[in-house]
Amino acid sequence: MTRTLHLNAFLMGVGHHEAAWRHPRTDPRRVTDVRHFQDLARIAERGTLDSLFLADGLSVGPNPRHNIQAVFEPLTLLASLAAVTEHIGLIATVSTTYNEPFHTARKFASLDHLSGGRVGWNIVTSAQEREAVNFNRDSHPAHADRYRRAAEFVDVAIKLWDSWEDDALVFDTTAGVFANTDRVHEVAHRGPEFQVRGPLNIPRGPQGRPLLVQAGSSPDGIAFAARYAEAVFTAQQTLADGQGFYAELRRQVTAAGRDPDLVKVLPGIAPVIGGTEAEAQALAAELEELIVPDYALAQLSGILGVDLTGLPLDGPLPELPDSGTVQAHQSRYQLVTELARRERLTIRQLIGRLGGGRGHRVVAGTPEQIADQIELWFTQGAADGFNIMPPHLPGGLADFVDHVVPVLRARGLFRSDYTGRTLREHYGLPRPVSAYAASTLVSA
Amino acid sequence: MTRTLHLNAFLMGVGHHEAAWRHPRTDPRRVTDVRHFQDLARIAERGTLDSLFLADGLSVGPNPRHNIQAVFEPLTLLASLAAVTEHIGLIATVSTTYNEPFHTARKFASLDHLSGGRVGWNIVTSAQEREAVNFNRDSHPAHADRYRRAAEFVDVAIKLWDSWEDDALVFDTTAGVFANTDRVHEVAHRGPEFQVRGPLNIPRGPQGRPLLVQAGSSPDGIAFAARYAEAVFTAQQTLADGQGFYAELRRQVTAAGRDPDLVKVLPGIAPVIGGTEAEAQALAAELEELIVPDYALAQLSGILGVDLTGLPLDGPLPELPDSGTVQAHQSRYQLVTELARRERLTIRQLIGRLGGGRGHRVVAGTPEQIADQIELWFTQGAADGFNIMPPHLPGGLADFVDHVVPVLRARGLFRSDYTGRTLREHYGLPRPVSAYAASTLVSA
Repeated sequence: MTRTLHLNAFLMGVGHHEAAWRHPRTDPRRVTDVRHFQDLARIAERGTLDSLFLADGLSVGPNPRHNIQAVFEPLTLLASLAAVTEHIGLIATVSTTYNEPFHTARKFASLDHLSGGRVGWNIVTSAQEREAVNFNRDSHPAHADRYRRAAEFVDVAIKLWDSWEDDALVFDTTAGVFANTDRVHEVAHRGPEFQVRGPLNIPRGPQGRPLLVQAGSSPDGIAFAARYAEAVFTAQQTLADGQGFYAELRRQVTAAGRDPDLVKVLPGIAPVIGGTEAEAQALAAELEELIVPDYALAQLSGILGVDLTGLPLDGPLPELPDSGTVQAHQSRYQLVTELARRERLTIRQLIGRLGGGRGHRVVAGTPEQIADQIELWFTQGAADGFNIMPPHLPGGLADFVDHVVPVLRARGLFRSDYTGRTLREHYGLPRPVSAYAASTLVSA
Repeated sequence: MTRTLHLNAFLMGVGHHEAAWRHPRTDPRRVTDVRHFQDLARIAERGTLDSLFLADGLSVGPNPRHNIQAVFEPLTLLASLAAVTEHIGLIATVSTTYNEPFHTARKFASLDHLSGGRVGWNIVTSAQEREAVNFNRDSHPAHADRYRRAAEFVDVAIKLWDSWEDDALVFDTTAGVFANTDRVHEVAHRGPEFQVRGPLNIPRGPQGRPLLVQAGSSPDGIAFAARYAEAVFTAQQTLADGQGFYAELRRQVTAAGRDPDLVKVLPGIAPVIGGTEAEAQALAAELEELIVPDYALAQLSGILGVDLTGLPLDGPLPELPDSGTVQAHQSRYQLVTELARRERLTIRQLIGRLGGGRGHRVVAGTPEQIADQIELWFTQGAADGFNIMPPHLPGGLADFVDHVVPVLRARGLFRSDYTGRTLREHYGLPRPVSAYAASTLVSA
């Protein structure tokens, strides 16, 4: 079978560019309007994209005065979008640091039923002190501790999804037997972080388990992905970095005893699309012009975990510690500091480079040029697909779907119609069997 | 203004009668089918009902072999129903014992935006040991402790909803000011149960705060309702009990310094509807005949907190302790034990009486007879409306909407069209002002 691209629409307010809301192509009032997101979902589905995706954080951003990119809670928004779409996958971010596995497993199972098997979970560990203080804590747990908790959290969630075998519901009205409880299992988990008896209070969803997605590219993050992830969102600025990450992830997946072809790697790309290259460059320049430096500095300070307020914009970044000591966005920290060093950027230049995608790769050009970049990374061992981050919404997504997707289809790189119904089918991934299937465990 | 009824559709799988799934009028396979619930929502909206409501528990029921009445997680299901309805209110149950106020406040605010101001929160404290063991606990906290936590939980949630004043979003593209942060407030809550800095990460919803609903009728529950609730679901078997509860609740609401006309009391009613009284009685008998005693005993044991397994069905209930010592469903315990004593019921008779509504009042009759009962309680100081619990679904709800609602309309007791857009407007309740409005607090 020919290998084909997987494309995910990363939805973010009225655009990924931090100044998109100020640009005449957007209406910032739509950030709280569900119809905006329904429009986006329909556009993405019109493009036969694999999935759409919502990031998440558990606090207001560092500087809400100048922008609030995400407003809706992902699971409720995706449930609403499930009702107005038929095929597209729906990936929600949920933190393992400030949630409980029973609630999380249950909500994803509920969404999987609601959507007919289209849900995925982007597993994150949260990164900000300002999130911790909303959840009874004075400080944010350390990076390694968060990943330890995340692993146990996902272990429990998998047990809970599996706790109802696929054939548990029998509906025997004559005998009065609704469920075969020999196929429903207590999970009886007792670990350092969690004690959960189970079973889950919702039967197994159409996909068995949601698609598991992961997005951190630190050493802890890659190790976690190697063990659990079926799709990986990553930020890579250069083809060489993309190839390096791709190879390293596959190496670790193989070492973890899994088939690397069953883990899809999707770097982020923010396509700034114009009818000509000059038009695309002009749009990029317009957006950069609208950046509010105070906001951009607050964002950058958040990524680096260092307060940059008051530093001269036309000077360099200050000396910063090694990434291994960073407790927040460890891989993003490394990417940003390397970018600044490699290209000898001033702070002003750096925030201009980051405004379009918070460290993700920005490509401005014609539809053909953008398709060229996608094809290059896809064929040169740097990507199985892309996480599409339109700078402005809905227009930037519509441009991608209406002008870039047809080029990719014409090149035989992307589907013209959905052939599957579930998110796993779109990504070409198998439906997991319950770990309890054919077991001899005592029923719940 | 004429006082009119408020009617809520309490949705529960394929029916409130515990044996509904065995009856030919239902298809039990629809319990995991979102289209079933979308159909129910559309039927309720066709009947211009105020709202629909989902109960919740955080474990599988006591005996899933013979029935699982609720499957979907309420917030995700309601988000999906919001997308296919326009007017009807959407009330979700969420426990304060096993959740965090930041998550809960946020999800309800998200749903309020998603639904255009149609969301309500049924605040519960959970009641079962089998829920505790799914959340890192060996035992369930005591009744009074749960209510103490619930009060602080709601206090925090209200602060979070209020943390964005209504005029906080300004979208000044020229100046680059997205939000007026003088109108966004840290809540800085530090209490015995919760430390939450805030502000919430979603602006204030169309209703300001969701409608607050409460459903426990124990002394702790009534005191809680008097302080917080805007609508109260209750189970009362006789007109006298209904009048007593109604008067007592209003007395306590007044004592708490609130206007009792702004707290709507809705007793549950399970209407078994027939073209003639005999047809209705026959349907009730058919349903009772299908009860699985093992399941009913497990349910009753759960309500009473006493294991009744193995007791002779044709004997009486055993001696039971006073309700004040009960740690689970305190008011329901009292109702059930009084019912059994008053009518000298055997266990078999008692489970037959409870099968239709778990302690709620079952009324079998013609549409006119059911309307008569509704009118009687409404005009005689026992109810502001009703929580409608159809024995089988969707048919029982369609019968109510198509046959009982027209009678209530003809009598001038119920609306013929929606006149408002939000749930608060349907219930005739004001939109709360943010506690921070016009305050001089320092911005976040």
